[in-house]
Amino acid sequence: QRQIDTLNTTPIIPITKQQLLSNVDVIMNMRFAFRNEFPDGEYEHSRFAMEQFRFEIRGKILDKLYFRFRDRYTRDPATQSQDNISRSTDLAYVRFDPNEHWKIYAGKLCADWGGFEFDANPIEIYEYSDIVEYADNFLSGVGLGYVTKSKQEFTVQLLNSRTATFNELYDSAAVPGIREAKFPYAAVANWRGNFLDGKITTIWSYSIFKEAHSEYMNYIALGNQVSLKKFNLQYDFKLSWEQLDRKMLVSDWTKQIGIAAAQKTKYMSHWVRADVPITKKVNLFFVGMVDYAYWRDNPDPTAPEKLRTAWGYIPGIEVYPFKNYNLKVFGNFIGRSYKYSDYAKTTLQQSDHNDFRISVGIISPLLVL
Amino acid sequence: QRQIDTLNTTPIIPITKQQLLSNVDVIMNMRFAFRNEFPDGEYEHSRFAMEQFRFEIRGKILDKLYFRFRDRYTRDPATQSQDNISRSTDLAYVRFDPNEHWKIYAGKLCADWGGFEFDANPIEIYEYSDIVEYADNFLSGVGLGYVTKSKQEFTVQLLNSRTATFNELYDSAAVPGIREAKFPYAAVANWRGNFLDGKITTIWSYSIFKEAHSEYMNYIALGNQVSLKKFNLQYDFKLSWEQLDRKMLVSDWTKQIGIAAAQKTKYMSHWVRADVPITKKVNLFFVGMVDYAYWRDNPDPTAPEKLRTAWGYIPGIEVYPFKNYNLKVFGNFIGRSYKYSDYAKTTLQQSDHNDFRISVGIISPLLVL
Amino acid sequence: QRQIDTLNTTPIIPITKQQLLSNVDVIMNMRFAFRNEFPDGEYEHSRFAMEQFRFEIRGKILDKLYFRFRDRYTRDPATQSQDNISRSTDLAYVRFDPNEHWKIYAGKLCADWGGFEFDANPIEIYEYSDIVEYADNFLSGVGLGYVTKSKQEFTVQLLNSRTATFNELYDSAAVPGIREAKFPYAAVANWRGNFLDGKITTIWSYSIFKEAHSEYMNYIALGNQVSLKKFNLQYDFKLSWEQLDRKMLVSDWTKQIGIAAAQKTKYMSHWVRADVPITKKVNLFFVGMVDYAYWRDNPDPTAPEKLRTAWGYIPGIEVYPFKNYNLKVFGNFIGRSYKYSDYAKTTLQQSDHNDFRISVGIISPLLVL
Repeated sequence: QRQIDTLNTTPIIPITKQQLLSNVDVIMNMRFAFRNEFPDGEYEHSRFAMEQFRFEIRGKILDKLYFRFRDRYTRDPATQSQDNISRSTDLAYVRFDPNEHWKIYAGKLCADWGGFEFDANPIEIYEYSDIVEYADNFLSGVGLGYVTKSKQEFTVQLLNSRTATFNELYDSAAVPGIREAKFPYAAVANWRGNFLDGKITTIWSYSIFKEAHSEYMNYIALGNQVSLKKFNLQYDFKLSWEQLDRKMLVSDWTKQIGIAAAQKTKYMSHWVRADVPITKKVNLFFVGMVDYAYWRDNPDPTAPEKLRTAWGYIPGIEVYPFKNYNLKVFGNFIGRSYKYSDYAKTTLQQSDHNDFRISVGIISPLLVL
Repeated sequence: QRQIDTLNTTPIIPITKQQLLSNVDVIMNMRFAFRNEFPDGEYEHSRFAMEQFRFEIRGKILDKLYFRFRDRYTRDPATQSQDNISRSTDLAYVRFDPNEHWKIYAGKLCADWGGFEFDANPIEIYEYSDIVEYADNFLSGVGLGYVTKSKQEFTVQLLNSRTATFNELYDSAAVPGIREAKFPYAAVANWRGNFLDGKITTIWSYSIFKEAHSEYMNYIALGNQVSLKKFNLQYDFKLSWEQLDRKMLVSDWTKQIGIAAAQKTKYMSHWVRADVPITKKVNLFFVGMVDYAYWRDNPDPTAPEKLRTAWGYIPGIEVYPFKNYNLKVFGNFIGRSYKYSDYAKTTLQQSDHNDFRISVGIISPLLVL
Repeated sequence: QRQIDTLNTTPIIPITKQQLLSNVDVIMNMRFAFRNEFPDGEYEHSRFAMEQFRFEIRGKILDKLYFRFRDRYTRDPATQSQDNISRSTDLAYVRFDPNEHWKIYAGKLCADWGGFEFDANPIEIYEYSDIVEYADNFLSGVGLGYVTKSKQEFTVQLLNSRTATFNELYDSAAVPGIREAKFPYAAVANWRGNFLDGKITTIWSYSIFKEAHSEYMNYIALGNQVSLKKFNLQYDFKLSWEQLDRKMLVSDWTKQIGIAAAQKTKYMSHWVRADVPITKKVNLFFVGMVDYAYWRDNPDPTAPEKLRTAWGYIPGIEVYPFKNYNLKVFGNFIGRSYKYSDYAKTTLQQSDHNDFRISVGIISPLLVL
């Protein structure tokens, strides 16, 4: 008798709330580091920095209905003219899975460009390759996905090609003859392959962007992963042809000769990450990357297309102090080496430099609720 | 014996927490659309846009004590000089209900101006009438409410009249002889009527704003609703007399003749929304509105007071794909027609235009926790 | 049999989630007031203001692992160049307690400077003393704490000395011969004493800041508290020697004689708060403070070092309307009196003034989830 009374006086959380509380996660994605910076090889600066801090809410909010929101505290919030939402907000979308095979989603999305570097949680990437660093990666639009029984996943997305308007990005006087597109879109096709029980996985994608009237950008990313018990290897190849320079790296250099918006640029990138878990708690890794920047529209026909080669190499160690909890303490060395072509050095007034930094810190997608 | 052990090892959420988790909701108010825009009748732009995205926490946090917070990710956050809180924050207040009849609340509030257009969740309003669009709607202050047994509700509020200072809003050189008020307040009286078991409801209000020393604004909103099983009709009449132009629409036009802050302006608005549910999942609606802008201080005595008539008409369809869940997919047509008086055309250099847009999208106050 | 079925259909919140929900708090730290302002003794302005609004998530997120995040909606968010996180974010750190004695934490922290004024929740401080008001209080870094069995706590911290760079703070042309430091750090040592079962407590600290190459700031804060049943008294003494003026108060005055960044400044502060609870629901308090600003680098050897004495006095009353809930209604009078030395008046063109304001409002760290 008494036990029943006791139970009755306990406020019971309503079932719908229990489902939400069970299925929705609140996460603080954090990477905090003590950085020692050596621009051009000389020690110049030490500081503590919150390299990443992204607040996230995600989960199942109704049977077959999912939600995801992620917002940064490390980027100035500024409402964007194209999609009307803050630049600090990475993700804000709903997803509906009518059955186990199909997904449909809409909102501000992560463009499904593939490659394992891009696909990782940003707190895991100590330094992005140029081709990812200088892209607009969070765009508004819709997506449709299909997963086969053998876990192959196919996705198509239709997105705005950017968050700012054409005129905000380009000085229209600088690109005579180029007209703003009526619908500047990005169309993405992605395949996530899965072979040998997940031992080999792929994230391959092709995207086309309409940057302006009759001006397109084509982007291919081919991500490949081998996951073994004692070894994990990822290799991404990425290539972007840009009729109107969108990464703005080449344009930044051609400004020196009066060309504020370069045309016919090309960016190519190789990226590799190898992980060797030494024990359950200790992981050694190495990231290597090289980015090439080309300008195929040089008015000087004798000049070579390649303007810059940017190398990156990041050896490091990651230690997991907690059992079954995704928090790691890391130490790494980040080296970057920028080599310009003779043409870029003499005509565009660029010069080679070698920067590196040594960091220790912590990384965790902290589950706080 | 063993079952008891099992129960004891289960962490039990404390009672006070269970009450909070039961009574507090975390909501993401979202409207996402694919917009096709036809300024002056010609197709010019398509884009995906997050038309609304407001993060909300609200509920009962203690017996008789309520809290509500709402913040936008679609507006630049900027601390306001008058009330010291971000412009992106709509609501941040606590409410105390000493008994079932009385409510008292304080903080950053929604001014209780009434009219059904203004009272709706912003995600439901595809396009606001001018008189609401150009008003400061979220203001800091206090409110007192009384609900009768027959569900009539009476509210009075005392608020700051704005979030920015007089000098931030008006070029003081442009309004010679007008002094800043020591307490620029808005006082609001509101009646929410309820008749025939809710079949007829009203939200009527009268407000007075002290904009500057001896300069007032008077605002009347008369909202009326008929709710039948197969038909819902809302009609709002709104009227604002402004000794110092506050909506800034007339001032925007009189700038052409050197008057940066117009005086003695008047804005009047009719707004109607009709909803016809076809089935449980499908709703047809039509919104119509007309806004008039008057200038009663024209130095030219022969000029008519009315400067502009702005029409709006929004037919559309809303589909609820989920049972018992407030998410809808919509399609609509938004037409706006701006007609200026001959005086406004010739002297103030304005010209008529007809804009429209066609959108499809989703609306939901997503309950995420 | 049937009862078991009933139990099985109830969604049970997973144990790890139950622990999070039990141990993590979501708090809205709020102070809202109606302010009547009398600059220089004359009534000039009344307004409602959200004096404080800080969103907080904190608690135990894993056995021995804690998290705390706090962000303001009353300060413009702006990513800082030194620590890369928004200026609006006070706190974003994780803490690990290996056992009951030791704590280690890292992230954006509250510098553990001690003094009871600084240690209080900001919603409790109606007006800060100059020495706290003009300091950078939330800094990125690491901390280590040790608590003895007798509840004495010792902490050391290593932090960035600021959130902005040297060049953002100082016009480098204005400080010839001063070079940016490679690692502008703040090192803090803190002792929290506890005597006679908590009747006497202390928060004492010493900090050294490296502001620039060979330019240091030394800061001492000695906080002391006597807590009796019917009386609580806090007294803080604070002293800051600044080789390069960091509070910028003296620099603000010496700008008049062409010195944009003053050197060899000193700030000293006495602060006292007395609380007398009249009943369980009513508390009377008085805050008194005086801040001295000195300039020891005056090129005029006859000029006295002390430039300004700033008095503050805040009598008030706080009423707790809810039993066992930390929400209070307050009324207070805030008086500030600024007295300049004759030298500051004549040469630096400053003048004395007496400001006060009268406020009523509410304060609460509202627990919303």
